[in-house]
Amino acid sequence: MPAPPLRIEADYLVETIGDPRRAVEIMAGEQSSGTFVPVPGETPELKARSAARVERLEILEERIETPTLPTTAVTSGVEIRRARATLSWPIENFGASLPNLLATVAGNLFELKSITGLRILDIRLPAAFAQAYPGPRFGIEGTRRLAGVKDGPIIGTIIKPSVGFDPQQTADLVASLCAGGIDFIKDDELQADGPHCPFDARVRAVMRVVNAHADRSGRKVMVAFNLTGDLDQMRRRHDLLVAEGATCLMASVNSVGLTGMIELGRFSTLPIHAHRNGWGYLSRHPLLGWSYVAWQKIWRLAGADHMHVNGLANKFSEDDDSVIASARTCLTPLFPDKACLAMPVFSSGQGVRQAPGTYGALGSTDLIVTAGGGIVAHPGGPAAGVAALRQAWEAAVAGIPLSQHAREHRELEQALGAAA
Amino acid sequence: MPAPPLRIEADYLVETIGDPRRAVEIMAGEQSSGTFVPVPGETPELKARSAARVERLEILEERIETPTLPTTAVTSGVEIRRARATLSWPIENFGASLPNLLATVAGNLFELKSITGLRILDIRLPAAFAQAYPGPRFGIEGTRRLAGVKDGPIIGTIIKPSVGFDPQQTADLVASLCAGGIDFIKDDELQADGPHCPFDARVRAVMRVVNAHADRSGRKVMVAFNLTGDLDQMRRRHDLLVAEGATCLMASVNSVGLTGMIELGRFSTLPIHAHRNGWGYLSRHPLLGWSYVAWQKIWRLAGADHMHVNGLANKFSEDDDSVIASARTCLTPLFPDKACLAMPVFSSGQGVRQAPGTYGALGSTDLIVTAGGGIVAHPGGPAAGVAALRQAWEAAVAGIPLSQHAREHRELEQALGAAA
Repeated sequence: MPAPPLRIEADYLVETIGDPRRAVEIMAGEQSSGTFVPVPGETPELKARSAARVERLEILEERIETPTLPTTAVTSGVEIRRARATLSWPIENFGASLPNLLATVAGNLFELKSITGLRILDIRLPAAFAQAYPGPRFGIEGTRRLAGVKDGPIIGTIIKPSVGFDPQQTADLVASLCAGGIDFIKDDELQADGPHCPFDARVRAVMRVVNAHADRSGRKVMVAFNLTGDLDQMRRRHDLLVAEGATCLMASVNSVGLTGMIELGRFSTLPIHAHRNGWGYLSRHPLLGWSYVAWQKIWRLAGADHMHVNGLANKFSEDDDSVIASARTCLTPLFPDKACLAMPVFSSGQGVRQAPGTYGALGSTDLIVTAGGGIVAHPGGPAAGVAALRQAWEAAVAGIPLSQHAREHRELEQALGAAA
Repeated sequence: MPAPPLRIEADYLVETIGDPRRAVEIMAGEQSSGTFVPVPGETPELKARSAARVERLEILEERIETPTLPTTAVTSGVEIRRARATLSWPIENFGASLPNLLATVAGNLFELKSITGLRILDIRLPAAFAQAYPGPRFGIEGTRRLAGVKDGPIIGTIIKPSVGFDPQQTADLVASLCAGGIDFIKDDELQADGPHCPFDARVRAVMRVVNAHADRSGRKVMVAFNLTGDLDQMRRRHDLLVAEGATCLMASVNSVGLTGMIELGRFSTLPIHAHRNGWGYLSRHPLLGWSYVAWQKIWRLAGADHMHVNGLANKFSEDDDSVIASARTCLTPLFPDKACLAMPVFSSGQGVRQAPGTYGALGSTDLIVTAGGGIVAHPGGPAAGVAALRQAWEAAVAGIPLSQHAREHRELEQALGAAA
């Protein structure tokens, strides 16, 4: 990979009214030394030292008919274009600080009048950021070690229903999943610390069966307990997880927010399973918000070990190309000396049928795949569901069609039949 | 105001493929006890206890031609409609927790395939939330007391250029603003702790002149120093602010995130000036993301004393109706016994001309107005700029047209001339 840039760089997809060069220069000005009215003390030297620069500008589309996002600017009789632009900032403007990076690369510029579409596509950070933040403490290798899965994907599931079980019902379900040979189990993001299923009681009940299963089998199933809450709650819950022998925690990054995730990354002694719920409001419009490629870098640097990426043919609105681009970016190094790789987590309607396509597009099994109905609703029960998923991935890695592999693997055959 | 609801309620503007009733029931299911495939242990009693409910559904528009947001669902030959829907959740699902509230009312539902537009319009919270979170510690009254402004708007400005000044240059500018009679000064959100203008040195240099001016004048200008950073940095910077006699701090809420802002709300002994930079990516598309009415409730409950709302005829893309709705909501009580009022902060291209319209629409002077060029670029200098703004607000409150008031108020007259 290339050396990290000396300046902070951000790529944008931008739709502008009038001259795009002028519009991105306004963006650069607004996000650095710019003022709309010249003010005293604003010397050319001072501006040059702090100014953001337009590094590249490439027109993508001329003659856009109507502005994509509403604006109070005059839009009739003006030319609207789309472009890809790269801006850069001197790191001296705010130092190697992720929170201040956000305010700079993703601050007021989304509200500019002359901008009728703006999406941050990518960011590239100077090496000082690699020194300032921990990155994932466990990543791929640490997760595999703790989960006891040397190779192949980590096969997981989600406790469903999302909410409603009490601690003992949850533990009973976990016991049957452990018996079924699962590698990984996660709380639903809606499950936290409600009075019907308090966090502490849930952790104690679940870890009792997980630890007992580990004593019998020699392998501890990794359970990602959702500790999302206020910071003091998360600290206390983390300590309980450690005391009970848990090997993973889950946090919803849009709920916890950046400084909370940075703090969690610093104090956690367990892998951090980062849930992205809410991602839709940040990304779903193609000309607004964040691309996953840019966004996930922030959380990996802050310490996320696992990052959700949806899955092929998912039940949500995201298309397959987007899913694969997301997964690939989690497995792409952030810095030459500090890769900060996070395990992509595939979820949402996942089953045996997605294995060949996922492996084919990614060329790696360094991932977690969580299947809900795909495992617990297997006609042969959860153990058969887990077996079927493993068989599907074996076939995918070996390049054998699922239907052929199913001839000698009954669970896979049943799963294909049930999914048909 | 009505009593707080017993269940958590959220209102949405929603665009759906097919039957809207069915689509919002899917939303309710996904965000509570729903599973796409029936799973063992999922009894009707258990579902009923935890299920989200569709409280209200009102069709707003039939026959939408093309889906607003992209989806992988089939969209040709299907009916697309827009509706306003209210969902509710039992608080027992996760307790009075703001982070878990976010994951529930603003989680995965934005990604649902059958939803081609989704915006959260409002939230209403049970009284338990009022007990669980501090709300603004200072609010209107505390801010007025510390700023020494008994009535009328708090007149403020922003240090510009945003970045580039060193600490002494910043302090020199602050000195001239203090001499000009300003009430309030804020850092730009791009100014944090860069090597050219370190936070500590800036605070010491600025507070030296602010304290000296207070000794002379008997009134301490309120300076909102941007302490946005990692949590340990924010704690340390808060303590420095207190030690140096500062009376306000500023934090960018989208950079700090929710648990960081909650933590700041708990440890801060100074008013929290909440900056919303990045708001554009959360809100700019009318059928995606957050309305300010819903969003600002979260931050007020977490402890924000001042909330940015843009301003009339601002330089950004937001229209005046939206600005006024935002300001009004900050001045609307959150709970009958705990109003949590935050001072709305008007900014962006503000000057004398906005005073009558702002006062007319709001009927209150419980606000901060920050003018950049409107003050420092006044032909008579900053003191004249401050005087002109005060004169404009006096006229607005008295119901006197600006042009008439300007006949006897030279600074206002000059400002109107300069702005023409």
